[in-house]
Amino acid sequence: MRVGFLGLGGMGAAMAANLIKAGHEVTVWNRSPAPADRLAAMGGRKAESPAAAAGGEILISMLADDAATKAVLVEGGALDRLAAGALHVNMATVSMALAKELTALHEARGQGYVAAPVLGRVDVAVAGKLNILAAGPAALLDRAEPLFAAMGQRTWRFGERPEQANAVKLAANFMLASAIEAMGEAAALVQGHEVAPASFLEMISSTLFAAPAYKGYGAMIAEKRYSPVGFKLPLGLKDVRLAQEAGFAANVPMPFASVIRDNFLDALANGDGELDWAALAKVAARRAGQQD
Amino acid sequence: MRVGFLGLGGMGAAMAANLIKAGHEVTVWNRSPAPADRLAAMGGRKAESPAAAAGGEILISMLADDAATKAVLVEGGALDRLAAGALHVNMATVSMALAKELTALHEARGQGYVAAPVLGRVDVAVAGKLNILAAGPAALLDRAEPLFAAMGQRTWRFGERPEQANAVKLAANFMLASAIEAMGEAAALVQGHEVAPASFLEMISSTLFAAPAYKGYGAMIAEKRYSPVGFKLPLGLKDVRLAQEAGFAANVPMPFASVIRDNFLDALANGDGELDWAALAKVAARRAGQQD
Amino acid sequence: MRVGFLGLGGMGAAMAANLIKAGHEVTVWNRSPAPADRLAAMGGRKAESPAAAAGGEILISMLADDAATKAVLVEGGALDRLAAGALHVNMATVSMALAKELTALHEARGQGYVAAPVLGRVDVAVAGKLNILAAGPAALLDRAEPLFAAMGQRTWRFGERPEQANAVKLAANFMLASAIEAMGEAAALVQGHEVAPASFLEMISSTLFAAPAYKGYGAMIAEKRYSPVGFKLPLGLKDVRLAQEAGFAANVPMPFASVIRDNFLDALANGDGELDWAALAKVAARRAGQQD
Amino acid sequence: MRVGFLGLGGMGAAMAANLIKAGHEVTVWNRSPAPADRLAAMGGRKAESPAAAAGGEILISMLADDAATKAVLVEGGALDRLAAGALHVNMATVSMALAKELTALHEARGQGYVAAPVLGRVDVAVAGKLNILAAGPAALLDRAEPLFAAMGQRTWRFGERPEQANAVKLAANFMLASAIEAMGEAAALVQGHEVAPASFLEMISSTLFAAPAYKGYGAMIAEKRYSPVGFKLPLGLKDVRLAQEAGFAANVPMPFASVIRDNFLDALANGDGELDWAALAKVAARRAGQQD
Repeated sequence: MRVGFLGLGGMGAAMAANLIKAGHEVTVWNRSPAPADRLAAMGGRKAESPAAAAGGEILISMLADDAATKAVLVEGGALDRLAAGALHVNMATVSMALAKELTALHEARGQGYVAAPVLGRVDVAVAGKLNILAAGPAALLDRAEPLFAAMGQRTWRFGERPEQANAVKLAANFMLASAIEAMGEAAALVQGHEVAPASFLEMISSTLFAAPAYKGYGAMIAEKRYSPVGFKLPLGLKDVRLAQEAGFAANVPMPFASVIRDNFLDALANGDGELDWAALAKVAARRAGQQD
Repeated sequence: MRVGFLGLGGMGAAMAANLIKAGHEVTVWNRSPAPADRLAAMGGRKAESPAAAAGGEILISMLADDAATKAVLVEGGALDRLAAGALHVNMATVSMALAKELTALHEARGQGYVAAPVLGRVDVAVAGKLNILAAGPAALLDRAEPLFAAMGQRTWRFGERPEQANAVKLAANFMLASAIEAMGEAAALVQGHEVAPASFLEMISSTLFAAPAYKGYGAMIAEKRYSPVGFKLPLGLKDVRLAQEAGFAANVPMPFASVIRDNFLDALANGDGELDWAALAKVAARRAGQQD
Repeated sequence: MRVGFLGLGGMGAAMAANLIKAGHEVTVWNRSPAPADRLAAMGGRKAESPAAAAGGEILISMLADDAATKAVLVEGGALDRLAAGALHVNMATVSMALAKELTALHEARGQGYVAAPVLGRVDVAVAGKLNILAAGPAALLDRAEPLFAAMGQRTWRFGERPEQANAVKLAANFMLASAIEAMGEAAALVQGHEVAPASFLEMISSTLFAAPAYKGYGAMIAEKRYSPVGFKLPLGLKDVRLAQEAGFAANVPMPFASVIRDNFLDALANGDGELDWAALAKVAARRAGQQD
Repeated sequence: MRVGFLGLGGMGAAMAANLIKAGHEVTVWNRSPAPADRLAAMGGRKAESPAAAAGGEILISMLADDAATKAVLVEGGALDRLAAGALHVNMATVSMALAKELTALHEARGQGYVAAPVLGRVDVAVAGKLNILAAGPAALLDRAEPLFAAMGQRTWRFGERPEQANAVKLAANFMLASAIEAMGEAAALVQGHEVAPASFLEMISSTLFAAPAYKGYGAMIAEKRYSPVGFKLPLGLKDVRLAQEAGFAANVPMPFASVIRDNFLDALANGDGELDWAALAKVAARRAGQQD
């Protein structure tokens, strides 16, 4: 298939590379040119503008946030270039509000729009093992499936309206943040009674919570190692706020999300904004007077 | 070894049976006689009183809560009967305050006291695969190790003071309740946008949260199946309150525990006290206006 | 002075009337014409468009929210009509973000901009006894002072940047919502022990909390009388969300605001969106199983 | 009347003095003798033991907490000495659980028991202007009314069961703590936007919140003056925990109480345990990175 790909950060570059390897004709664009050059060296085509990447059957975007997505698609001209009948697959984590707005914009032009945010970090993207959380009209998702197959291990479908996939992605990130906060509080509790948090976290993530989310973040909390950063703390706050907005839109109280939001703000106010979002656990420790 | 065993509920009966199978000489007592009769049929000896079970080298107790533990040990005469130099291994989930009190009571009589609460439900106990969370003087834990080996797959040691094991057990149960609450809120969020919670929970517990805690409770929440009861809701509240008390004792704020406590009270006030503690998720749904 | 006045809801109409009575030359505009006709009958001039009201030395706006404010000022042409050197006094409760945006828009045109939201309901506005919470350059506030004097009993100044007054107004509304929530929880607590909430609330608002906020809302809660509506529940949620956004902008955790937000959502989800925001107390009662 | 009075702290001494001035025959006891000597100099009689003070028609106690109350009454022999048919009026802030226990203990001996905790600090007690929050059988309260009249400006009755008055007192203290927390968060919010908290607090406590609770604590927060101590922070935590227990007993979720509890723990963990409970506001400031 002839595919355009907008946004070649760590995730996007890995995903686009897998599309090229799978034999698709991929035209890539990125704000800074180096990643596009690398993809070109692998067999992709480098576009000089977002619009220049939007001439194929399917356009994929994997941009940083709502603002970047809107800027590239609208001001960058990609939306205007995309043919009627073509399909845009937005794989970034954006707000439900933007998803709805984009759905309407595409509909008005006779273009297809689906959302397909992903679970998995860069190493998973490189391995082509992402979990893809998709929503949109079934026929459109079917068209994108060969691409999903090249990027992920499994596609999960959650409904006919694109923004439903964004709701699912925000719910998943909320659960990750909740797991971090729960570990942080539990670690502070046992530390308060002179049990080493590392011992506790090793035990818990080897037994009841023997899952990737707990093992990875548990180790960071145990070692108080919050850099290098996998996912930066302010991005965690951004996603929890988007989850709260999604809750607001459907009248869903989320008291855990509220606690997490306030604790992220505490972290930012106390100088931890450059750390991984697992530093949420530092807030629990500091509030308990457990200084480093 | 000559072992006494007090408390033959589902957990206790399975644990005592494994001790008998391992060749230990086990004298059992239970408030209602039937379980003791069953153990006697397997090769145990039935004691007519708590005191009568306390004549061996090691006494194990696995009683319902603080009140039952104290009643059986003190009023029931077991403590008075236990020889100086003998060891009492308390495997129940009790408060840190009681653990300290019992430590002092045993010390005053020259008896040993360790705490060893467990992770795992009845089926795990039957299989002898419990995780045993132990604390107390190392020499005493060494003495109990052959018994632990008969009941569990692994013993984790957390310190020299018995109550430290209770802190760990309360922290673990707090984390379970947090996982349930997080799933409940996330399920309400996606339901609010017409995504089936079952689809979301299946996905999340197959990927990031592929752990026993999430698979089991996730299925209950997905199916809105809160009975038969594995762990009754008021017991969940009891343990969260004990965790809060443990936090109070060490000046550890636990905002997630606070949310959980209030939501358990909401559940009780609205008629869900007979359900499994996973019914915490019903509170999130009801608050979002998602009636059954 | 020659004054324009945009927005003649209950508050705006009362405030504009007091300006007319004080001898100012007031040109009024309102989306629906009837209120403007009433003001014209009192000696004001009726403008046919927002722009037509913006020809004087000072323009006052008292519009419903951010969206209405922006629509009337920008699309309605008032901003384009306002002379360089003229002053716009925005007395509505708007977001800090909009306040900053409007400050920049006015500056770019050489116009003055100050914020002066008010404390007090319609009866207080009619009596000319509002408390005016003002911020902006001192010289500009001085120019507006004769108008403030006609509308309020006192002007409080909070800084040189207009949005600071909005922060203060949001903080004040947050405190009102907190008072309502505290009364709601306390009422549920005493009701849970068969003490009549009305007795408790009468006592407390006659003693420690003998203040207007407690007397008024206390009586509503005591009588479970949440209509007719003084301030509609969704507007309370709007203001608490704006307070949270103001907190976000300065990294200020506000756990009480978080609780209130979630409880407002609970109220909306459970059918209380048409009631006065004091119906926050219904949430506390319902969660405690205290059905009407 | 012949009255015994146990507990001559600041409050108790002032209250007993007013009884003496009103002409009652008052026998006083205090753990440390000096306050009793002072009362004796005013016309009271000094008892050498709690029991020795319990020989009259009415016994009043005003002791520090649950533990002190129980120790003095039971171990101190006052309960044994109190005649059948005599009345014990407990004016201290104790738990509902202790109130129930004492009710049963007195009933078993044919003695009357009522609860009558008070609102007001020492200066109010000296002036005889306390608000008395009473509960118990009406006939018993009638008997105590002449004494209440000497100590307070008004007696409020809340029910036939003594512990109901304790619920009311705990609800009142919860509301005070809520007011402090709300002011603390609001002060942090405006400070975050460079508005002086003192200006904000002066305004708010002169307008909507022109009540004793806000004026007093507002000034302390504005001046960051948390000593000398009026009511020590750990006592505030004690009372909020008692309010939570009262909520637990009736299945009443109290999310504001939960926030306050966690913030008090934060304050203790971070070294503010010697300050007035208004130092709750320091927690809000510290979490927002607003260091002194």
